[in-house]
Amino acid sequence: MNDRVIVNDVGPRDGLQNQARHLAPADRVRLVRALLHAGMDHVETAAFVSPKAVPAMAGAAEIVAELAGTDATLSVLVPNMKGYELALAAGARVMVMVVYATDGMARANVGRDRAEVDAATADILARAREDGVRVLTTISVSFECPFEGAVPAAVVHDAADRMLALGAERFVVADTIGAAAPDAVSAMMGDMVGRHGADRLGCHFHDTRALGLANVYAAAQAGVRYFDASIAGLGGCPFAPGATGNVATEDVVMLLQRLGLDTGIDMAGLLAASRLADELTGTAPGGRARAWLTQAYADGAG
Amino acid sequence: MNDRVIVNDVGPRDGLQNQARHLAPADRVRLVRALLHAGMDHVETAAFVSPKAVPAMAGAAEIVAELAGTDATLSVLVPNMKGYELALAAGARVMVMVVYATDGMARANVGRDRAEVDAATADILARAREDGVRVLTTISVSFECPFEGAVPAAVVHDAADRMLALGAERFVVADTIGAAAPDAVSAMMGDMVGRHGADRLGCHFHDTRALGLANVYAAAQAGVRYFDASIAGLGGCPFAPGATGNVATEDVVMLLQRLGLDTGIDMAGLLAASRLADELTGTAPGGRARAWLTQAYADGAG
Repeated sequence: MNDRVIVNDVGPRDGLQNQARHLAPADRVRLVRALLHAGMDHVETAAFVSPKAVPAMAGAAEIVAELAGTDATLSVLVPNMKGYELALAAGARVMVMVVYATDGMARANVGRDRAEVDAATADILARAREDGVRVLTTISVSFECPFEGAVPAAVVHDAADRMLALGAERFVVADTIGAAAPDAVSAMMGDMVGRHGADRLGCHFHDTRALGLANVYAAAQAGVRYFDASIAGLGGCPFAPGATGNVATEDVVMLLQRLGLDTGIDMAGLLAASRLADELTGTAPGGRARAWLTQAYADGAG
Repeated sequence: MNDRVIVNDVGPRDGLQNQARHLAPADRVRLVRALLHAGMDHVETAAFVSPKAVPAMAGAAEIVAELAGTDATLSVLVPNMKGYELALAAGARVMVMVVYATDGMARANVGRDRAEVDAATADILARAREDGVRVLTTISVSFECPFEGAVPAAVVHDAADRMLALGAERFVVADTIGAAAPDAVSAMMGDMVGRHGADRLGCHFHDTRALGLANVYAAAQAGVRYFDASIAGLGGCPFAPGATGNVATEDVVMLLQRLGLDTGIDMAGLLAASRLADELTGTAPGGRARAWLTQAYADGAG
C-alpha cells in the first residue's frame, strides 16, 4: 500500500457537539487551525443545526467566515434544506448530509423515517448540483443499530448506489455505535470499492469496543482511502469514562503511516492539536496510543 | 472463519512477573482457577526462574503441585536446563522456552547471545523428547527490537524451521514491544501457516501502540488459531499509566468471537477473572474494551 490516503478530522463538529463544555466559535477555529497546521486538509468544522437544539454548535456561520479562503476541504453538517441555505449563505461550499440505515435510528436522531430523510437529501443533492456545492453523504449505523440490531449489507449498498447516482461526491460508511467486526468491514468495503471506486467512498469508525483500528486496517486492505477520525478521540461521552467514541485521528494516522500510506500529516503537529483539544475540552479521551506516541515524539523517535 | 481457536492466558506468568505487587502462590492459583472456570484450557501458570532474580515468580513448584490433575494445558516457563529440571521434578509436563530474534534482546534478557540460547533450547528439546514433555517455543521481538530495530522476517522463519524440526510442539511469534503493523503480521503469518500448518503456530501481541487487536485480526485472517493474551491486560508497566503491554484476553476473545471463531470461553466468566486480576494486583489495565464489555454483560446483552 503506497497511496495517498485522506483523513478527515470530524472532531470540531462530531467530536465537540456532545461535550459537556461548549466551546466558543473562536476556540473551535483554533482547533481547526491546529489540525490544518499539522497538514490535515479535510476537516468537518461546524454544523448548521438549531443552536437551541445543539447549543455546542452555535456560531457555525462565524466559523465558516473565519476560515474562508483556507486551502483545504472544510465541510459543514447540514441536517435539512434550511441548514443547507444557512450554510450556503455563510459561504460553505462542502456540505455533509447524514442518511440512515434504519428507521429506528432516523427517528431517534431526526424524528423522521429513513425514506423521508432520503427524499430530503435527494432534494438537497439536486439543489447542490445547481449551486456547484460539493456534498458528502454519510450513512449512520451501517453495521448494527442500537434499536434494530444487525443491518443487512444490502441496505447500505442500496443507499450508496442511490446517493452516488444523485451526485453525492462521496459516500461514507459509518459504524456509529462501534459495533462492526473487521471481517464484515472487509466484505462490505471490498464490494463497495469494486462497485464505485475508492475515490467516492470513505469509512467512519468508532472505537467503543476497541475494534476501531482493526476496522480501519480491514477497510484500508479493502482499498478504502478516506477515513473520518476525531482528534484526541473527541466524541466519547464525557459522563461515561472509558466509553470512547470516534476513533482518534492520531491513532488512525499512526496506523495508516505504518501501512505505508501517505497521509500528508505531521504526527508532532497532530499531537499538538490533540493537546489543544484536551486543553479546550478538559475531557478529551486522547486516543488509544497516546502514551506511546507522546513518548515516541518526545524522544524524537517517531 | 468457523474453526476452533485456542487462547492461551499468560497473565499468571508473563502478566504478573513485572507487577509492583507480588502475589502469593495461592493467589496466582486462584487466578488460574478463575480462568479455567471461564472455559480457558490453556494457561501459562508459573516460571521456574531464580526467585532472587524474579521474586514475583517465587513458588512455581507449589503452583504446579496445587494445579496437578487439571484437565487443561498448563504451561510453565523454563529459562534453562536447571529450570527444566525443577519444573519436571515439580510435575510440569508443558514447558515454554523463549528464543530471540536478535542478540541485543537475548543479551538484555538473559545475558547470552542468540546462538547460545538456541543451543540451550535445542538441548532441552532433545531432553524433553526423552521425557515425553511438551515444549512450546516463543520467539521474542519478532518484528522490531528495541536495541536493533527492524527484524528481517527471514530470521523468524529460520528460527521457526529449526525449533519445529527439533520437536517443539508449537512456535509462537511474539511482538514483544508492540511494534508490529498488521500488514507485516499478515505477510509473516501467511507464509508461516503455509509452511508449517496452523496447528504448530501461534501469535503473541502487545498493545503498546494500540495495534494489538488489528494484529490479532491480521493473524487470524492468515489462518493463525492460537493466541497468547493476558487477563485484564496484565503485563503493562504499573509505573507508566497507559503503557499497556500484553493484549487483554477479554479483548482478544471478544474479537475472535466476533469473527465467528469458537473460543470455548465464556465472556461473563472471563470478566469475573478480570475483576479478580484487578482485585489481586490493584493495577490491572483492564483491556481496551472493558467499559463496553462490562456494560454489555451487566445488561445480559453480550
